[in-house]
Amino acid sequence: MKIEIISTGEEVLSGQITDTNSSWVCQLLEEHGLQVSRRSTVGDRREDLLAVFQERSQKAEVIIVNGGLGPTVDDLSAEIAAQALGESLVRRREWVERLEEMFEKSGRKLNPENLKQAMLPPSAEIIDNPVGTACGFMIQLNDALLYFTPGVPYEFKRMMTHEIIPDIKKRFHIETVCRLRRLHCFGIAESRLDGLLRDISLPDTVKLGFRAHLPTIEIKIMGLSKSEETLTVEMDRVADAIRERVADRMIYEGDGSLQQEIQDAMIARNHTLALAESCTGGMIAEQLVHVAGSSAYFERGFVTYSNEAKIESIGVPPELIERHGAVSAEVAEAMARGAQKTAGVSHALSVTGVAGPEGGSEEKPVGTVAFGLATPDKVHVQMLRAPNWGRTRIRTISAAVALDMLRRDLQGLDPFGHYDLTRTVSTKTV
Amino acid sequence: MKIEIISTGEEVLSGQITDTNSSWVCQLLEEHGLQVSRRSTVGDRREDLLAVFQERSQKAEVIIVNGGLGPTVDDLSAEIAAQALGESLVRRREWVERLEEMFEKSGRKLNPENLKQAMLPPSAEIIDNPVGTACGFMIQLNDALLYFTPGVPYEFKRMMTHEIIPDIKKRFHIETVCRLRRLHCFGIAESRLDGLLRDISLPDTVKLGFRAHLPTIEIKIMGLSKSEETLTVEMDRVADAIRERVADRMIYEGDGSLQQEIQDAMIARNHTLALAESCTGGMIAEQLVHVAGSSAYFERGFVTYSNEAKIESIGVPPELIERHGAVSAEVAEAMARGAQKTAGVSHALSVTGVAGPEGGSEEKPVGTVAFGLATPDKVHVQMLRAPNWGRTRIRTISAAVALDMLRRDLQGLDPFGHYDLTRTVSTKTV
Repeated sequence: MKIEIISTGEEVLSGQITDTNSSWVCQLLEEHGLQVSRRSTVGDRREDLLAVFQERSQKAEVIIVNGGLGPTVDDLSAEIAAQALGESLVRRREWVERLEEMFEKSGRKLNPENLKQAMLPPSAEIIDNPVGTACGFMIQLNDALLYFTPGVPYEFKRMMTHEIIPDIKKRFHIETVCRLRRLHCFGIAESRLDGLLRDISLPDTVKLGFRAHLPTIEIKIMGLSKSEETLTVEMDRVADAIRERVADRMIYEGDGSLQQEIQDAMIARNHTLALAESCTGGMIAEQLVHVAGSSAYFERGFVTYSNEAKIESIGVPPELIERHGAVSAEVAEAMARGAQKTAGVSHALSVTGVAGPEGGSEEKPVGTVAFGLATPDKVHVQMLRAPNWGRTRIRTISAAVALDMLRRDLQGLDPFGHYDLTRTVSTKTV
Repeated sequence: MKIEIISTGEEVLSGQITDTNSSWVCQLLEEHGLQVSRRSTVGDRREDLLAVFQERSQKAEVIIVNGGLGPTVDDLSAEIAAQALGESLVRRREWVERLEEMFEKSGRKLNPENLKQAMLPPSAEIIDNPVGTACGFMIQLNDALLYFTPGVPYEFKRMMTHEIIPDIKKRFHIETVCRLRRLHCFGIAESRLDGLLRDISLPDTVKLGFRAHLPTIEIKIMGLSKSEETLTVEMDRVADAIRERVADRMIYEGDGSLQQEIQDAMIARNHTLALAESCTGGMIAEQLVHVAGSSAYFERGFVTYSNEAKIESIGVPPELIERHGAVSAEVAEAMARGAQKTAGVSHALSVTGVAGPEGGSEEKPVGTVAFGLATPDKVHVQMLRAPNWGRTRIRTISAAVALDMLRRDLQGLDPFGHYDLTRTVSTKTV
């Protein structure tokens, strides 16, 4: 089936708003086995809207049109759809009643602008929107079915999944079921995943997709079949094969994050955490606190950016810094021990590194980072070298490696992982 | 002039890669007075590429085609351009020589894949790319000039500004000069800017544009005129009028950031800074350390997430927390004083608030945040209420307000700003 997207709106066209809706819907359609062949973006000008509806409806069978259903004068989608059809807009009773109901419930007054949202081409089929005032609608124009959808992401996503995807499947007699599993891993380069998973034989019903969210990578297992039962078995088999190959670099499945995984595991075990961050500069704390409920295990963080801070706030011996330098396994160890003791917690993580652009030496070039993980009975220390991909990426990778040490330890694994992106300089457990 | 964009590539079409190039180029063209009327996105399939080149070249006068110039088999732009023209690809000596030169200089060996990048339609005009191995090229197809450009953002941007924009201006006899000034402000709601600046009379040569980068807003002053001299005067007048209205909510002009402004001012005055963060949880430290060179003034940060951390790490009196609660002007003041004293610095910022989703009360609902700024002679404390727009946005706004207090103080302004987004509960200077 030939399926296309039309995004509308001046701010989308000019790039003021990043068009996340169309990325999202392309992926949704792909997960349902429907491949988009073109996306067109136009502004709010009548002639451009009319041209894109007329032209694309002669080329595609299904078109998702996004945006332009709001109550303001530059929301023109319904008007131009009517013009393309050679019809005049009419006020549709069904939607006026829904609007009246909606406004009465919330105690607000229905204003004339909202009534504009019930003006549709007479031949349009209304598509329900229980979470907003703009109804969607579907028209047949030339060779295509055009589905008009609201720009508000929450309303758009609900309408696509609950109304439009089932409608397309029904109209085009697509009897397949779709299932999606998402595995997230850390430490594998995207360029190596293909090779790593190449020997997994995929049934015709299952496709793989990768998506990098630096520093983690998502492996999507997309299943599409007429039999839900067989599909589940087949997808489980593929997921098991992936897990076997990705092994300890797999961090979680489904929604969530490395930070959420750590939070859940720490709270379940009654552990508490402190941080001593130098080059990451608060990035790890910020990522942990981002997750609601983090106060149940995250006790405090020290951003010990200067040597004095390392010495005074968490008791790093000055002679260690003098002898080994602030970026050293010895100082990382002392930082983790110091944070653990000062905060009176069960676990502490430390990071100290050369994030650049200045400050590198021949022995410790930009990208050299030392990590410490203090647990109730041991301290694990490692020094890695990240590629010099710039300050921000070095810091981002460092934060992820530190958290991954903790994740691995919590899962009973060796805290020292092998990461494609970094070279291990040294490891030590004391 | 009718100008369009064509973006190519499976990963751009599927939304795996956010198409920042086309947003960027739309804005660049707008700054030069050229308005894009449509953007089309297609994957790497031959028939889709051919169709989009054929169709759009009958509608537009200028088309910027982005992507597909790389050395791999799915880089098809040149091949399909030749097909559309009814030509066969030929190896272009000019570019082979440039490649040989480039590779010799860097001591690498030219491989056959790179020679593919010199295969162009015979009628194409080569566009120089001094920073990559893919040359750009221009063809005349149907009614349009098609400019083919590389997908690598750095190469694309250089080619657009240095080669293609001047070429378009020359060919279409556009003799105007373009100037852009960007003013960044904090604390004004985007919805209010229009009203605030409405009475500024704009000459025909000057346009305004707004762009929100939460929590700051950028005001773009775009000038377009035949006389550079008059334009500068006119733009200066508009900029002055905007500065007058935005007043103390203006934070900087041009490139940069609030964090960079603060860093420059702190270093110039030999000041040093410590942080005591509760609800922002390291976000402020992270933003400051993001700027290279921050170690010259940023001494350390305390992420005092628990009450014990506030008491033990920076000496907040426990009875203050007991009497007023951890989110209070009193505790914010003690946190700022404590961080200043503990770190031995000239300045300290503190933040303590209810970021939610849990933890709010009737007196202190989610969104209530207290701030402290300790300077060598005074401590400024304020308590604000941010709208409950979710944990992340509350924390983002809080980090910006804290930094803005410091920015205002460094600029000799009252440290307490009036922000459209927040309601001031109390302010105090001791």
